[in-house]
Amino acid sequence: MPKLDFDIITLGHGSGGTLTSQLLDTGVFSLLQNELLNKKHDGAIFNMQGKVAMSTDSFVVSPIFFEGGNIGDLAVNGTINDIAMCGASAKYLSLGFILEEGLKMTEFWEILNTIKFACEKAGVQVVTGDTKVVERGKGDKIFINTTGIGEVHEKANIDINNIKAGDKIILSGPLARHGITIMSHRQGLEFETTISSDTRALNKIVIELLDEFGEQIHLLRDPTRGGLATVLNEITKEANLGIDISQKNIPVEEEVYGACEMLGLDPLYVANEGLFVVVADAGIADHLLLQLQEWEHGSMAAIIGEITEQHTRQVLMKSNIGGRRVLNMLAGEQLPRIC
Amino acid sequence: MPKLDFDIITLGHGSGGTLTSQLLDTGVFSLLQNELLNKKHDGAIFNMQGKVAMSTDSFVVSPIFFEGGNIGDLAVNGTINDIAMCGASAKYLSLGFILEEGLKMTEFWEILNTIKFACEKAGVQVVTGDTKVVERGKGDKIFINTTGIGEVHEKANIDINNIKAGDKIILSGPLARHGITIMSHRQGLEFETTISSDTRALNKIVIELLDEFGEQIHLLRDPTRGGLATVLNEITKEANLGIDISQKNIPVEEEVYGACEMLGLDPLYVANEGLFVVVADAGIADHLLLQLQEWEHGSMAAIIGEITEQHTRQVLMKSNIGGRRVLNMLAGEQLPRIC
Repeated sequence: MPKLDFDIITLGHGSGGTLTSQLLDTGVFSLLQNELLNKKHDGAIFNMQGKVAMSTDSFVVSPIFFEGGNIGDLAVNGTINDIAMCGASAKYLSLGFILEEGLKMTEFWEILNTIKFACEKAGVQVVTGDTKVVERGKGDKIFINTTGIGEVHEKANIDINNIKAGDKIILSGPLARHGITIMSHRQGLEFETTISSDTRALNKIVIELLDEFGEQIHLLRDPTRGGLATVLNEITKEANLGIDISQKNIPVEEEVYGACEMLGLDPLYVANEGLFVVVADAGIADHLLLQLQEWEHGSMAAIIGEITEQHTRQVLMKSNIGGRRVLNMLAGEQLPRIC
Repeated sequence: MPKLDFDIITLGHGSGGTLTSQLLDTGVFSLLQNELLNKKHDGAIFNMQGKVAMSTDSFVVSPIFFEGGNIGDLAVNGTINDIAMCGASAKYLSLGFILEEGLKMTEFWEILNTIKFACEKAGVQVVTGDTKVVERGKGDKIFINTTGIGEVHEKANIDINNIKAGDKIILSGPLARHGITIMSHRQGLEFETTISSDTRALNKIVIELLDEFGEQIHLLRDPTRGGLATVLNEITKEANLGIDISQKNIPVEEEVYGACEMLGLDPLYVANEGLFVVVADAGIADHLLLQLQEWEHGSMAAIIGEITEQHTRQVLMKSNIGGRRVLNMLAGEQLPRIC
């Protein structure tokens, strides 16, 4: 951390005046520097050609630090992933901070470093930003908004209307890691093995799959808030089709499953951050699965079910003990402030 | 407002589940609908060609309702204006809400309507969004992030490096209205005449000026947080030149001036929301001023000073009583949460 003559954030750092300049010049700008951000204008100017995807997310996760990440990489990866689900690779991000008066500069610095690292790893640039400060008790340490844009893959044709009966539903990895990490923090639980958030950027693997399978990939969705069950329900409602899934094919790690039981949570409704669902033509599903399994985070990827013309607007799950039940959307608030 | 079975925002509305869907379907989506937003995907896909400007701002203004506007149009206009200062007209906006549990649905609805109206007036579309809810006491009613993009005007060449000695500095209207409106609300002051915020979108007037004067417009800046004095100081430091201004040429409305005196504020440091500074070639300055004065909000526009090679990195102001003094940047926090 650079030497600063303050160790906590004060209201003055949000004034737009000298203290704001000082905070940005010694902190944000020097760390995240790139040609566009260095202009320090209120906006960034760059070239874009053709189909572009844009997405936004505000992050209010509590606690701000957790196993496997913090609010900084969560914010970078979250928006990269929403853009990836459009069949695009994020290129430029904006970064908006709402800081609570009293936030420790060491914490802010660690978050900034994590943002820098996550951006480098995913190959995106922060090109413009904003910093506001609210009084103690009017915020909660730090909220971050990221908004991103990226060019859509030339072979991508991601559209809910492309889904048809018989399409396979592929899940990229095991469920519920992010939600359980946050929840166990809050409850002060310790497990024998460490469960960590699955926050990661999905842009590279998505582009690789699109390179290979193009428009045979009909839909991409990341099951964040509301979990897998909610995303599958949204798909049935938007496509006016049904979904059949099989519980035994849905990957959940043993310690995560145990933690879910302890916390009384169903992993199907718990938030994920580095996971995605592919709805793909049945003809390429096995191939796509093989490629996904070769990805560093894809060893547990699985075909979990398929699209059907039966029971439209409903998700039916064949349980491990053989029965079939309707899987509803998440109704209330299972895990507030999970992302 | 549509009939809802809830009248305040609860944590469940941020869950990503059924309550979130209900809030969005009956509220946000129906009100702000357009072809892109209607897809209800996590991101929006559209075409962009050539030079694009992108900007972001988080809005934490308190109170959220004030004379002349509320946090909704402030958020829409604020980002449109940052993009306008890049020489571009905003086309698409993202909209991120951080709501505090307990926010009245009637208030949220009024803000949404104001957002809709501000978007229509400025000719921009909200194409993607996000809604989070935090517990009571961890936020303050509502924070809004808007991020926008727009295509840069083909004749625009806005760059701090284009500024040269002799360039004129033109201010589009009278100072300090937004800041004084917010501040007098907080202090419970009432004035004989009503002072209202100057929040408005500047994209159309900026495009008209660029149509006419193109690259003879060297720089555009909107003096929001930190006020006119801070923006002029930033220009001198980034351009490594000096600025001379004359107090008698700087427009301030009489009742605003009186309110500033009462509140002990210097209008040069008070935030504006619908104002901009043009640094233009001296040869077209009078012409540009005339065109600006024909704009519906430009009757008080004025040439307030010029760029000089003297006293680099400093702003000198000739005061009404004849002396010259250095105008510094805003040092601390004059008005927290002004935008």
